[in-house]
Amino acid sequence: MSARQRLKKLEGQAPLKMHPRTVLDAYVDEEVLRDTAKKVSNWNRWGPDDQIGTLNHVSPEDIVNASALVKRGKVFSLALPFDQNGPQNAGGWGGRFNPVHTMLATGTDAVTGQQGLKYGGYADDMVSMPLQCGTQWDGLGHVFYGDKMYNGYDAKLVDSQGAAKNGIEKTSSGMVGRGVLLDIARYKGADYLEPGYGISNADLEGCARTQGVEVRRGDFLICRTGYMGQCLAAGEWGSYAGGAAPGMRFETAEWLHAMEVAAVATDTWGCEVIPNETTITFQPWHLVVIPMMGITMGEIFYLEELAKDCAVDGVYEFLFVAPALPITGAVGSPVNPQAIK
Amino acid sequence: MSARQRLKKLEGQAPLKMHPRTVLDAYVDEEVLRDTAKKVSNWNRWGPDDQIGTLNHVSPEDIVNASALVKRGKVFSLALPFDQNGPQNAGGWGGRFNPVHTMLATGTDAVTGQQGLKYGGYADDMVSMPLQCGTQWDGLGHVFYGDKMYNGYDAKLVDSQGAAKNGIEKTSSGMVGRGVLLDIARYKGADYLEPGYGISNADLEGCARTQGVEVRRGDFLICRTGYMGQCLAAGEWGSYAGGAAPGMRFETAEWLHAMEVAAVATDTWGCEVIPNETTITFQPWHLVVIPMMGITMGEIFYLEELAKDCAVDGVYEFLFVAPALPITGAVGSPVNPQAIK
Amino acid sequence: MSARQRLKKLEGQAPLKMHPRTVLDAYVDEEVLRDTAKKVSNWNRWGPDDQIGTLNHVSPEDIVNASALVKRGKVFSLALPFDQNGPQNAGGWGGRFNPVHTMLATGTDAVTGQQGLKYGGYADDMVSMPLQCGTQWDGLGHVFYGDKMYNGYDAKLVDSQGAAKNGIEKTSSGMVGRGVLLDIARYKGADYLEPGYGISNADLEGCARTQGVEVRRGDFLICRTGYMGQCLAAGEWGSYAGGAAPGMRFETAEWLHAMEVAAVATDTWGCEVIPNETTITFQPWHLVVIPMMGITMGEIFYLEELAKDCAVDGVYEFLFVAPALPITGAVGSPVNPQAIK
Amino acid sequence: MSARQRLKKLEGQAPLKMHPRTVLDAYVDEEVLRDTAKKVSNWNRWGPDDQIGTLNHVSPEDIVNASALVKRGKVFSLALPFDQNGPQNAGGWGGRFNPVHTMLATGTDAVTGQQGLKYGGYADDMVSMPLQCGTQWDGLGHVFYGDKMYNGYDAKLVDSQGAAKNGIEKTSSGMVGRGVLLDIARYKGADYLEPGYGISNADLEGCARTQGVEVRRGDFLICRTGYMGQCLAAGEWGSYAGGAAPGMRFETAEWLHAMEVAAVATDTWGCEVIPNETTITFQPWHLVVIPMMGITMGEIFYLEELAKDCAVDGVYEFLFVAPALPITGAVGSPVNPQAIK
Repeated sequence: MSARQRLKKLEGQAPLKMHPRTVLDAYVDEEVLRDTAKKVSNWNRWGPDDQIGTLNHVSPEDIVNASALVKRGKVFSLALPFDQNGPQNAGGWGGRFNPVHTMLATGTDAVTGQQGLKYGGYADDMVSMPLQCGTQWDGLGHVFYGDKMYNGYDAKLVDSQGAAKNGIEKTSSGMVGRGVLLDIARYKGADYLEPGYGISNADLEGCARTQGVEVRRGDFLICRTGYMGQCLAAGEWGSYAGGAAPGMRFETAEWLHAMEVAAVATDTWGCEVIPNETTITFQPWHLVVIPMMGITMGEIFYLEELAKDCAVDGVYEFLFVAPALPITGAVGSPVNPQAIK
Repeated sequence: MSARQRLKKLEGQAPLKMHPRTVLDAYVDEEVLRDTAKKVSNWNRWGPDDQIGTLNHVSPEDIVNASALVKRGKVFSLALPFDQNGPQNAGGWGGRFNPVHTMLATGTDAVTGQQGLKYGGYADDMVSMPLQCGTQWDGLGHVFYGDKMYNGYDAKLVDSQGAAKNGIEKTSSGMVGRGVLLDIARYKGADYLEPGYGISNADLEGCARTQGVEVRRGDFLICRTGYMGQCLAAGEWGSYAGGAAPGMRFETAEWLHAMEVAAVATDTWGCEVIPNETTITFQPWHLVVIPMMGITMGEIFYLEELAKDCAVDGVYEFLFVAPALPITGAVGSPVNPQAIK
Repeated sequence: MSARQRLKKLEGQAPLKMHPRTVLDAYVDEEVLRDTAKKVSNWNRWGPDDQIGTLNHVSPEDIVNASALVKRGKVFSLALPFDQNGPQNAGGWGGRFNPVHTMLATGTDAVTGQQGLKYGGYADDMVSMPLQCGTQWDGLGHVFYGDKMYNGYDAKLVDSQGAAKNGIEKTSSGMVGRGVLLDIARYKGADYLEPGYGISNADLEGCARTQGVEVRRGDFLICRTGYMGQCLAAGEWGSYAGGAAPGMRFETAEWLHAMEVAAVATDTWGCEVIPNETTITFQPWHLVVIPMMGITMGEIFYLEELAKDCAVDGVYEFLFVAPALPITGAVGSPVNPQAIK
Repeated sequence: MSARQRLKKLEGQAPLKMHPRTVLDAYVDEEVLRDTAKKVSNWNRWGPDDQIGTLNHVSPEDIVNASALVKRGKVFSLALPFDQNGPQNAGGWGGRFNPVHTMLATGTDAVTGQQGLKYGGYADDMVSMPLQCGTQWDGLGHVFYGDKMYNGYDAKLVDSQGAAKNGIEKTSSGMVGRGVLLDIARYKGADYLEPGYGISNADLEGCARTQGVEVRRGDFLICRTGYMGQCLAAGEWGSYAGGAAPGMRFETAEWLHAMEVAAVATDTWGCEVIPNETTITFQPWHLVVIPMMGITMGEIFYLEELAKDCAVDGVYEFLFVAPALPITGAVGSPVNPQAIK
């Protein structure tokens, strides 16, 4: 079902219930930032040549165990359709725009005889798209702490030729494991969390406990804010891509580090709560989790159908397979993540 | 390991052993084409509104069973890197070209202070690429039989706006199941099959028998010709993309139909043997399997490492997860297929 | 001066004076359309192989005479900057979007030593843009009357490979001649004409008479509505690109034909008045002037500075040089038109 | 006439006569480079805010005088067609590729009723292209000397957002003046100059004298090597784009400075002779003429027809109008230069 169809279905329904935010304290000063960066650092943990960071937390045994979670043979695609109805408005953040899909050959060419083929014809197509415009992985070359990226590589190694280190292609066979959904909105008794609502460590733990699911080393942790669902229901993205959003509080960096998750993803544009818990920089959480911890981060995941299913059967764990396109030197990738129950 | 690195490793090795072709009979005339089209047709088999064809062969139970094949937790990426070293030469077939990856923000911008950020910086990027340029799925809007595409939809529904029917986005959660590798080159005692070598039904059956694996309804059938490996070893693509190739003989259309496979993929640019077994059209097999049978077809799959592993442990079946990017209205998609053993 | 700078200058000024429209009669029915198409047809006028239409009206002598109009050595660029501040909003008409300019190499790469050059460095760049997104020529393959384009060529000759006939590259050396500005807004005593205001034959003639300029065979006729200037002053494009606009009334087709102008251009997105003077189709004037008359049409021309200068010196004629990029098979081209006085 | 048509015409003709090179002395060492840079510098000559460099040499009077050169009303387009037959081979220099032209709407869509229009239809299109891939201007942000670009601006001002200074859009109305063709190949009695042939100051002066034309302040100087013509005649580009080429010797930097030309252009990919007259860097001439002198440089100009005409009438001067597309922040632009005699 397309995003547009989803919208259609939602028309005329009652207004959604939101969980309001309390204004967050801007406590992340230079010292907090530096200390946390140090605490969560995984530099050199997997050797000086490592380029996949926390994906190393996943063991072969974890993959075997995750596969054993498949009990009903039900597959959920966690991707938004990639098209002009995507969340990027004109003049999107950092020049991002919705995918431009154009045809190199068409059925109309074929049926008018323009292809010169007697028994049939063909169509071909192409796409131009920012790798961060829709459902995507942020790679380890996406954010720098000071002049460095993950594992201490110099940030200047990401130049116009792409990322010479930490390119997304390094994750080519690394996006398989146990997925866990934490439906924070539902846990909070709301349809969605209001932009500015910060998900705390207590929220993460309380939600897991309530859902009866344990977060473990090597997990792909997926948090639902419901905010994408709200935008789809409202029929407009507004400032979804680049603006205020519910999301992870800064403190969760340490929690994720302690939990040793493989990756984290949400249904918002940047995982992290905005407005920020700081006045000294933009997205302080990004600054520590990507370059210091080495976490690959999923954004703009479509979680509405998966969440509904989990609410029904009470099972919040599944096999998760979300392979990035191995675009050499890329700092991100569009993805169609699969949650298999 | 990148394609270039693979090449490096192969330098200085002994020449590869090829399995020579015998010139194929051009027996596919208008009548054979029409008859086969009729025999393998799945139009209306899953109702008049169906848009995913043979992917319907996969049942939830198949997915559960396929997941149980994961025993070692080993993941193989079957994608070539997407970059300028890909198989499309200048002026590629139908205007196809290798992916153009460009940066919207870089680490060099960040470290020179151009981003105006005190504590770090970021990189963003984009890609422009034909959806058929590298490892990919051909969707059901990709080929027409006469004026029709799969399930009888009018070919003109694939216009400059994309495919109004049979778009690749319809397969969004449909690319999960049991994968089976038939290593035809190995079965033939060769490193690779020569361009022009046609894989027959007998080859498919003989190979399966020899490998001790059974092809079943709902399988994702992957055939290795070794030809991609040969190009990588030789260090040049030559006419790999668009030229002569080893591949499926026309007769396999009926076999695939009888076997009720979900999808088929190879390590060549078009699955099908070229030169064609006909003088009346180009790629006669495409003309029946995509629009009539409704099979989604994988091309340019990188199979060398998977094949080596299967040869070692003798296990030629695995969980296969290969989600297309749901680009709305697309007739194909780049993909990073995952074979999980 | 950039569009943004122009906007800045205009901030805080008095509201602009507009010339209101009167609702136009929807008199263009099927018969009027057909009759006018017939009357203005230039099919076969310059032979069955002609592909440049009314540009044939320009004689070498006209070019010599036009050059003699250069008396002050003052050059006006009539192009908007091509960038993200252009008139195409998100989801622009027909999928048009503002130009995407990206870098293939940068100064930041150079100064950080990433280019490995000791004495300097370089930058390179690329652009992705709809040919109709900004200041542009509509070529003769851009609009069809029934199933035909200019000179009777079949419309299907414009397929996914581009325009096999009437491509913009045919005009490669044809965009030189006498330019004449008719400042209709000024003639009407307004800063700009309101969207929906239809420029009549009487307006064209009255304006020319008032300005003391004669429209002649082979002229590049440029009409100013002031509407672009209004958008720039307001600081937002609103529905400029694709929406209601002041512009040419349907009757002007016959007038332009009688005048034997080489081309026509305005400062709006489509030259023609919208809402249309018909209920049976969109942009009826386009349907006759491009495919029947064979006129190459300029759109989104920036005329504010030229108009100011003409108002001062009273000289409304100039040498006009506006070469399209000869993109083979294109149906339009971005252009930086030069008015030289 | 398209490049392909030009090739067709040349088929079966006698081999072209080339002017052989003598191996050039690699005399440009660090000291020569530094001295020349200093000598030809125009930094601050037109004030600290100047961004157009030697285009300042053109006075309004020059433009009036240049217009008076138009005597026959004959227009020459100096652009190669922009298409897949352009000079960029696969994996072109610096990632450059030939233009990718795709359709957003087609005549085949229209005639099959897909546009839903009763009386006609339309076509739209887009292009993706490196700004340096074909006939083009190199802007003043294209090359750096040390860490600086023209007029002393920091090279880092050219980042992923484009050129904040010296962008090609600054030349928007500056590309009009007197053009002078120096047909060096013809002067040397050859059809073309061999790659590696270096054009000396003596060649430039000798050629001008022989042709009876004077190079003056503010001229757009165009030098023909015939090498493009040779490639077109041979029917293949070979290493034309990025490889060895006939062209300007390093010493011409000082000559051009003394002559006070407005711009310089040739029919090769980089104006400058390759192999270089140095071992310490690539293209030493670029390093001084663009960032130090501030000259905008035309490359890949198609000069065959203009040269033939000049040889016939003996007139080597003309009105030259070659407006760049004002792509904001671009370091170059495709162009369709017009020589009007």
